[in-house]
This record gives sequence, structure tokens and C-alpha cells, in this order.
Amino acid sequence: VAGTAHSNGGGTRVMIIGGDGYCGWATALHLSARGYNVCIVDNLARRNYDLQLGLDTLTPIASAHERVRTWGEVSGQHIDLQIGDICDWEFLSQAFQSFKPDAVVHFGEQRSAPYSMIDRQHAVYTQTNNVMGTINVLYAIKEFNPDCHMVKLGTMGEYGTPNIDIEEGYITIEHNGRKDTLPYPKQGGSFYHLSKVHDSHNMHFAARAWKIAITDLNQGVVYGVRTEETVAHKALINRYDYDGIFGTALNRFVVQAAVGHPLTVYGKGGQTRGFLDIRDTVRCIQIAIDNPANKGEMRVFNQFTEQFSVNDLARIVTAEGNRLGLNVETISILNPRVEAEEHYYNAKCTKLRDLGLEPHILGEAIVDSLLEFVIEYKDRVNMELIKPAVDWRKSPTSVATMSAAVAKQ
Amino acid sequence: VAGTAHSNGGGTRVMIIGGDGYCGWATALHLSARGYNVCIVDNLARRNYDLQLGLDTLTPIASAHERVRTWGEVSGQHIDLQIGDICDWEFLSQAFQSFKPDAVVHFGEQRSAPYSMIDRQHAVYTQTNNVMGTINVLYAIKEFNPDCHMVKLGTMGEYGTPNIDIEEGYITIEHNGRKDTLPYPKQGGSFYHLSKVHDSHNMHFAARAWKIAITDLNQGVVYGVRTEETVAHKALINRYDYDGIFGTALNRFVVQAAVGHPLTVYGKGGQTRGFLDIRDTVRCIQIAIDNPANKGEMRVFNQFTEQFSVNDLARIVTAEGNRLGLNVETISILNPRVEAEEHYYNAKCTKLRDLGLEPHILGEAIVDSLLEFVIEYKDRVNMELIKPAVDWRKSPTSVATMSAAVAKQ
Ligand SMILES: NC(=O)c1ccc[n+]([C@@H]2O[C@H](COP(=O)([O-])OP(=O)(O)OC[C@H]3O[C@@H](n4cnc5c(N)ncnc54)[C@H](O)[C@@H]3O)[C@@H](O)[C@H]2O)c1
Ligand SMILES: NC(=O)c1ccc[n+]([C@@H]2O[C@H](COP(=O)([O-])OP(=O)(O)OC[C@H]3O[C@@H](n4cnc5c(N)ncnc54)[C@H](O)[C@@H]3O)[C@@H](O)[C@H]2O)c1
Repeated sequence: VAGTAHSNGGGTRVMIIGGDGYCGWATALHLSARGYNVCIVDNLARRNYDLQLGLDTLTPIASAHERVRTWGEVSGQHIDLQIGDICDWEFLSQAFQSFKPDAVVHFGEQRSAPYSMIDRQHAVYTQTNNVMGTINVLYAIKEFNPDCHMVKLGTMGEYGTPNIDIEEGYITIEHNGRKDTLPYPKQGGSFYHLSKVHDSHNMHFAARAWKIAITDLNQGVVYGVRTEETVAHKALINRYDYDGIFGTALNRFVVQAAVGHPLTVYGKGGQTRGFLDIRDTVRCIQIAIDNPANKGEMRVFNQFTEQFSVNDLARIVTAEGNRLGLNVETISILNPRVEAEEHYYNAKCTKLRDLGLEPHILGEAIVDSLLEFVIEYKDRVNMELIKPAVDWRKSPTSVATMSAAVAKQ
Repeated sequence: VAGTAHSNGGGTRVMIIGGDGYCGWATALHLSARGYNVCIVDNLARRNYDLQLGLDTLTPIASAHERVRTWGEVSGQHIDLQIGDICDWEFLSQAFQSFKPDAVVHFGEQRSAPYSMIDRQHAVYTQTNNVMGTINVLYAIKEFNPDCHMVKLGTMGEYGTPNIDIEEGYITIEHNGRKDTLPYPKQGGSFYHLSKVHDSHNMHFAARAWKIAITDLNQGVVYGVRTEETVAHKALINRYDYDGIFGTALNRFVVQAAVGHPLTVYGKGGQTRGFLDIRDTVRCIQIAIDNPANKGEMRVFNQFTEQFSVNDLARIVTAEGNRLGLNVETISILNPRVEAEEHYYNAKCTKLRDLGLEPHILGEAIVDSLLEFVIEYKDRVNMELIKPAVDWRKSPTSVATMSAAVAKQ
């Protein structure tokens, strides 16, 4: 694996918060394979959500400890593993002081919109976990490693669907004969998306007040599962979520096609979003680390490569499924979310390309290989979990029992 | 007192969260005197901050219980008092279900920027208390009183100091030949101000998703202390904060002038903000209640009446102090905050006037009466507490001991 390195991390010390998750694990291995000195920080909250909700990744993933052990054997590279919660200041400050990161990549948040809308408690949990965790990371940098570059995962969903072009983080506004460049107006569509909006505002302040260097990556929806490193051993396989709570659009459609479940389009299907291949996620992170923000600056990149509507995705998956002999149908179901189903959408994403990103474009080959990969794990699919499980309008105040959260409708 | 009513609340049930605080107490009495059926919800957190930090209001205030008891005797009006924390869902949901408010006025947050910057714990406390409390209120309305109008106190400080005019909550942007009206970009200057930015985003979402009626009042800096009702009995007197953590600009200058302490201008003193008389605060709230937002709408009003720079205020207080025979000096001290000290500032505030607000303008008479009022309580002033106590840049991660928080520099 080490031989496949495109560039050399030169021992740069990178702390990956949320490094046991979908994007974080792939990134940890990508960087470790390329000479970065990696430390994973994760409280395993994501595995716990699955336990609570009776969900499971399509792929059988190894424990966090077995993952890094296996990686050591396969690659000869050591990854440090710190199990703990970044909302626990005592833990985080010790992790920071012992590892002394040059860069911290912060993936470590509750990242599902439906999960945040299950009920009041999940809304409060999501915003507390995400916003306070990020405040802690900011204080840790300020106090212990003021030169540490913070690379933070946000989401394209922070912008909502405005009727004007979406710029990368800031917009220049002319108004009553005057002009300023201001943070782009945000309209998050769930308590999860809003937690990222809050993070961005807090980070923008901390960058200015404390002269911290921050890159805020507004990531699109990630698809795919295999990266160069995760295919090297079965204990390195990445998670693949297809359920109604954590499964994202394309990944979910592929599973539906593979098992003969109709593709479930929410409402009219005109919802358009930015998407990217997980192999581009890991590259984007590396590019951000290699080209750090200036101190005192919160730089924002829109991290996606192509725009698709939900209907576009359904069409692509259908075509490829049919080519592979699968019988793929599409049904429209009542949209459980509150969102525009037909809208203007034109988001910019040039900054990462200017820094060298060469996107993987979603084409036949990729959908085919995803479909083939999923068919391999077909027997692990639980059809019950595919349905949308959380309705935005019904988000109750009483604790939704976990089984109810997954198997309603 | 009842005879002084300008209009009739007609028994409208108003829950005032934070009703034991500076604005909340004045508002509770104002509304109770005018035929609204008032319930105060407060966890007395504000009194506890004073205990922790060794601070005290200039005016000797009665206990919350004695306040409402006295008001009952003086006015013949009953005010319901519920002591509890809105972050405690069990408490809040019971308070809501038993009182059944037609409108809830939400003042109940930690409202000091310096307090939020004392250290990491105070930053996390402020954002948790404010943001999660507001989420709970949104859920309570959604679940128990979907027709209840939420009147929420924000701050003009959410906008920061952009180089373009500040509109009331939203701005119409033309960009690349297209046009949309979007939330006005926010740039809070402390973890406190940012907590209000987060609230606004969360409320904007909840209004859309759950069809709640919300008025977000971006209030300027409030000055003054006496209102028609609080002067009726000494046990009804309002709090008056002059210390380096909770004292706001004009109130603090008046105390400094009264006791012969130089007026402390932070940095160049060009910082310009919106201000209003507390007698206008109570009127604005009444106007908002009497003219509710539509369901599904988050309406934003900028709630202030005049703009002043810190230097303007120092000049006004100096002139009036001199006229009363006080010897008033002004000194510039190192700005403990991170903020622009010279900047463009032009904020709109027409919506409340259009609904009938007749502003009290800051003039000689008002400054005189404030000065005279403060001189009455001169012996209670603790000179130690006047100094700025919290430095934005130094905000540590370790728990600043409380004495250290107040008496540094
Ligand atoms: N997957 C996507 O399509 C996508 C799209 C846009 C943005 N993002 C963002 O990228 C990041 C990673 O997403 P993902 O899909 O890998 O999510 P994931 O849930 O698979 O990974 C997140 C990891 O963070 C950990 N974590 C959560 N809270 C933590 C805490 N308080 N302390 C320590 N660790 C904690 C979890 O245990 C998990 O391993 C998230 O911030 C997410 O919002 C993801
Ligand atoms: N005073 C100003 O100049 C000013 C300016 C702009 C905006 N505001 C806003 O107006 C509101 C009132 O300000 P104020 O000056 O009266 O502040 P205050 O501190 O005097 O009053 C706030 C009250 O809320 C209560 N409270 C706080 N957290 C609570 C919780 N979790 N549960 C129940 N009660 C809680 C406190 O005990 C206190 O009595 C605040 O939201 C503030 O941000 C004030």
C-alpha cells in the first residue's frame, strides 16, 4: 500500500476526530499510507447509534482496535487510537497535549439529519454534541497548539436551497450603494444541518478573535465505499449505511436496486445536491492539510464534484441496474422532510480543484462497481431498515422508542 | 397603577421566561398592569451568577417571591411564578401545560458577552443554556400550544458591524442576475452573541418546518431602570448592573460619573450600537404580542431607537454630569474585546415604529434622572467591580476562579 502514495506527508501529525466513521476511517488510512503521522480520536458514538436503533452497516466492519492493529500489520504504519468524547474536556485536552497535532481533521459529529429529527432529545443531543465538541476543539487549539490547522467538516446542506448561486462560504453584497463580503446566508433544513451552521459561525469568530487557521469544508453527499487502502484486508473494510436514518441518497439507491426494492424517491425528486466520491473526500482532506489556511482566517471550500437531483440519481442507478440484469423500479413516497422539491441550485466548487483535486466523475463504471460490491453483501440487507423512519413534521417531544424510530410508516 | 394602562391585554396569557431579570421583570409588570395574564418562568440563574462572581445589582432587589407578592398587594393583579430551568424539559413541559400561554416572551438566557468569554466552561454553558433552552421552548410550542406566539429576545450584536446597512433580519440579494431574500448574514462577536445567532437559525427552521409564529427581536443595548410599575414600591425596584461583566455601556457610564470614577472607553470608542430606553423595551414587547407574527413566519424586528458610539455616550454623560456639578473624566483603556473600533454602522429600525412605538429619546432629562437615581444608591457601588474583567484574547481553557474573573487588570 505504501508504494501507492501520491505524495508524502513527511510525518505531519494529523489528529482525525471521528476517525472510526465512514469518511474518517478512509481518510485516516489514506493519510497514514502517505507518510502522515495519524491519531484517531473517536468515542464510537456512531456504532452506538446502530446498537440503539437496531441498524447495521451493510459491510461487516471490524472493531476500531482491530482496524488499527490490522493496518499496522498490512502497512507497517502505526495509527494512534484514542477512544474518548471530545465533549469531555479532560479527555480532549490530554489527547491534544500528548499527540501535539499539526493539523486536526474534525469529522466527529452526529451527522444524520433524520437522527436529529427523531425527537426533542435527539435534536438537543445532536446540537450539544456537535456544537460543544467543536468549541472544545477550538479551545484546545488556542490553548495547546495555536499553530495547529483545523480542518472541519461542514455540509453543503448549511446553505439550503437559495434562489441565487451558492458561493464558497462568503458572498459579496452590494446594498444601498455600499459593499461588503459577508458570510453566505444559511438556512439549514434539520437540527443536524443547523448544528453545522452554528459551528461555522463559532469557528469564524474564533479564527478572528484567536488567530486560528481554519478550513471549513462544506461537503456534499458522499457515495462509494472502496478506497485504495480499505480494500487491502477485510478487517479494513469501511462502513456502508443504507438505512432510512444514516443511508445517504446514492448509497441507499444502490442497495435498493441490488435487493429488488423500488428506489424510494422522496416527493417530486427535484431536490438537487452536490455529490462526491469517497475517494475524492480523502484527497480533499489531504489537499486542505497540505495547503493550510492562514492564521486568523476561516477559509471555506465547497467539497463536492457534481450536482444531481434525486431523480437524476434514480435514473442513473436504474440504467446501470438494468444493464446488470436487475429489475429496478422507482416509487415516489411522501417526503418525510420539509424541503423544496423543485428549486434552483447552482453551487460553486472551484477552490479545491484549483488546489489540485482531480474528481472521480459518477459514471457507469462507478455505479457498476458499487452495485457489484453491494450484491456481494446482499444477504446482510435488512429490508425493514430501508424505509424512511423519521418525519420532520412529527418529530415528537416524548422519547420515541428506538424500534418506533426505525420501523414506522 | 392599573389606572395608567394604555391598552387592555384582555386576559391574554403571556409566559415570560426570564421574568426575574432586568428586561423581564419590567415587562412582566408592564403587561400585568395592562390586563395581560402573566406567568413568570425563571431559574434565578442571573442571581446565581452574581453570587458566583461576587457581583451585585446597584439597587437592592427583593426576592422573586417577594416581588410578585408585593405586586399582588400593590396592583391587585396576580402574577404566577414558576421557578425552574427551561433546559429541564420535565419542568418546562409542565409549566407550559399548566399555564397554556397564548404568547411566550423568551428573555431567559445568559446575556453577558464577557461572561461567555470568561473561560471555556462559561462559553459552553452559555451556548448550551441559550440554544438548548430555546430548542425546548420551540418543542413545547409545537407539542402543547401550536398557536402560541413566540416572542424571542435576540440582540443587534448578532449582525456585527458589516460595511453595508443592517436590515431587519433579512436582506434581498441580487447576485449573478438572480435574486432572493435571505437571512441577513451574521457575525457575532462573542460566544454569547453567537448563541443568539444560533437561536435565530434554529427558530427560522422551526417556523418553516412546524408552522410556528415567531417574532425575533434583535434588541439594542437597554438603558434606564425606572418604569411606571417598578417605582410603585421599593420591593418592585428593578436590577441595575454596572459591573465589568453585566453592566452595559450607558448604565455603567452613569455609575462611573456618579461615583467619580473616570468613564472607561474601550479602545478608540468609535464602536457604534443601537440603544433604547427600558420603557421602550416593555412597549416593544407589548406591541409584538398585540400584533403577532403569522404562523410559519419568523418575523424579525430591530428593537432599538437611536444609534450612538461609545464616545457619543461618554460625551452625553460628561455634559450632564458637569451640569449637576460632578467632575466627569473619560479615559481610554485597552479594549478587552475583539471588535472594530471605527466602522460604518447604519441599522434599520422602522418596523416597531410602524406598529406604534413612540420612542423615548435619550436626552438631558433622562440622563439627569438616571444620574440622580444612581446617586441615591451611590453607597452600594463597589469600585472594584467597575473595571473590565474579561479579555477576549485571554479566555482560558482552565476554570478561571471567580474572583480572578472580576478583579483582573
Ligand atoms: N457522509 C456524508 O455524506 C457526509 C456529507 C457531508 C458532510 N459530512 C460530514 O463529515 C463528517 C463525517 O461523516 P461520516 O459520514 O463519516 O459520519 P460517521 O457518523 O460515519 O462518522 C463520524 C464519527 O465521529 C464520531 N463522533 C461523533 N461524536 C463524537 C464525539 N463527541 N467525540 C468523538 N467522536 C465522535 C462517531 O463515533 C463516528 O465514528 C461529519 O461531520 C459529517 O457531518 C458527511
Ligand atoms: N439588557 C440588554 O441591554 C439587552 C440587550 C439586548 C438583548 N438583551 C436580551 O434580552 C434578554 C433579557 O436581558 P436582561 O438584561 O433582562 O438579562 P437578565 O440576565 O437580567 O435576565 C435574564 C433572566 O433569564 C433567566 N434565565 C437564564 N437562563 C435561564 C434558564 N435556562 N431557565 C430559566 N430562566 C433563565 C435569568 O435568571 C434572568 O433572570 C436576554 O435574552 C438578553 O440577551 C438584553
